[in-house]
Amino acid sequence: MPDEAVPNLKIYLAEKKKTVEAALQGYFPEPEGLTSDLINAMRYSLFAGGKRLRPILCIAGAETVEGSGRQILPVACALELIHTYSLIHDDLPLMDDDDLRRGKPTNHKVFGEPIALLAGDGLLTEAFNLMTSVHISGKISPQILLRAISLISRAAGYDGMVGGQAVDIQWEGKKADFTVVKFMHIHKTGALITASVASGAILGGADESQIEAITSYGEKIGLAFQISDDILDIEGDSKTMGKKAGADEQKGKMTYPAVLGLNESKRIQSELVQTAVLDLREFGSRAEPLRQIARYIIKRKK
Amino acid sequence: MPDEAVPNLKIYLAEKKKTVEAALQGYFPEPEGLTSDLINAMRYSLFAGGKRLRPILCIAGAETVEGSGRQILPVACALELIHTYSLIHDDLPLMDDDDLRRGKPTNHKVFGEPIALLAGDGLLTEAFNLMTSVHISGKISPQILLRAISLISRAAGYDGMVGGQAVDIQWEGKKADFTVVKFMHIHKTGALITASVASGAILGGADESQIEAITSYGEKIGLAFQISDDILDIEGDSKTMGKKAGADEQKGKMTYPAVLGLNESKRIQSELVQTAVLDLREFGSRAEPLRQIARYIIKRKK
Repeated sequence: MPDEAVPNLKIYLAEKKKTVEAALQGYFPEPEGLTSDLINAMRYSLFAGGKRLRPILCIAGAETVEGSGRQILPVACALELIHTYSLIHDDLPLMDDDDLRRGKPTNHKVFGEPIALLAGDGLLTEAFNLMTSVHISGKISPQILLRAISLISRAAGYDGMVGGQAVDIQWEGKKADFTVVKFMHIHKTGALITASVASGAILGGADESQIEAITSYGEKIGLAFQISDDILDIEGDSKTMGKKAGADEQKGKMTYPAVLGLNESKRIQSELVQTAVLDLREFGSRAEPLRQIARYIIKRKK
Repeated sequence: MPDEAVPNLKIYLAEKKKTVEAALQGYFPEPEGLTSDLINAMRYSLFAGGKRLRPILCIAGAETVEGSGRQILPVACALELIHTYSLIHDDLPLMDDDDLRRGKPTNHKVFGEPIALLAGDGLLTEAFNLMTSVHISGKISPQILLRAISLISRAAGYDGMVGGQAVDIQWEGKKADFTVVKFMHIHKTGALITASVASGAILGGADESQIEAITSYGEKIGLAFQISDDILDIEGDSKTMGKKAGADEQKGKMTYPAVLGLNESKRIQSELVQTAVLDLREFGSRAEPLRQIARYIIKRKK
């Protein structure tokens, strides 16, 4: 893991994030009329300072297979809408009951629970509107676009993220078990991260073997990312993270460290990142951003 | 309004409903493994005895323009998933706090609030998976399918159903106003009903002027449908409806009768249905189901 890689990655992430922010602002309406509270609530969480990891992975996935990152921006941004909706619903009192997210009051703390619920519903629905909008149709073959939307919807639904959330909430406070915690992590976080990079590859024009390699990379970094979230909850600084450290243990959440201990969790995480990088062999220097993102996952502080 | 039309419509609705039920059962997974509670919750509300009005309108829309109702079943069924998710979220304690829906305990009463929330999220997401699945791709031109999905997602989101729900909840208990109640009805209920029949027409191969005529029909019956819901809440029988009559007034909901009185509401409703039928002139006998559905909206008891 060469240290000089980090400054390059910082510039790369900052540039891509800027592109994503501008695109999101362009797609997203200004609040007006009777639904202005709803739209304000959607915007509040969407522009609360996320890392934009999923859109960046989608763009990097496309560029790794020599596709255009710019052309697929609507899909990249839609992934952020889906991620944001999941955070709003997850923070609701009936779920995790969190007051802080990214250092700011959670959506329902500002807008009330009904509007927070609807802001989540609105973001999820708008993600699919964005993916089928004039911003992308005509630029990408409709057949390929449908395949990407199908992949993303599966990863976000009961067989992916929503399924993982259900297991997470149902097993809270119960004796953790490795099979269950792995299932939960793969579904709750891994599925959408995998779909982000894989949909980018599909939209970028990858062939089947390239899609397979990038999907395999995505599955590994998706799991590693959730393990690093677990570790940050133990070792991280509340101020840097913008949310309370130690919350997982307090809530009796299933985590890798809780089941396997901190050292074994770090070993697995490191192995996942190393093997994820091996999946990218065939892409040469074009895959350098994806390789560095994989390594960044272990180093990140928030 | 010929009375002999009703038995024909009954047979038509029963046949189409049977087709929709069978398709939904086929697409929808049996509960298994760690997510079986979630899937049970999704199935519970999906198979709780809905009228399947939106899928039937979608099929009728396609058949009116000589398209195949069978080919577009995944989209027709997806509309029912979207409708069902909206009911589950609407019934949550943080929203309308309802205990009964279609004569049965509401989703959160049976599965708890977290799983009910996620069942709604799962149904909405699965709707888009179904619309992009192998069940439909290959049968319909991808470009036309994307257009239909775009229309449906817009109608379901902040500029449609979710926007209407937000206005509904925010104006609860406040002095009703005609502009607001009309906006709310058009968005909360009208938008998805319009999108149901219009997406059917699009997928059935309609030309632009046909899409326009059927959309105009849909807008009118969508609004008439919500007005009849308001009227049923006053005149209906709790047992027949499977939910408590008089609930709107008790909750201080905005309704047409509350703003305009019962007689004026009925007059507007009747005018909407009559002009909706006129929109179908060019389609001859093929549009007979849509004409009868328009008239049924006033006569229905639940």
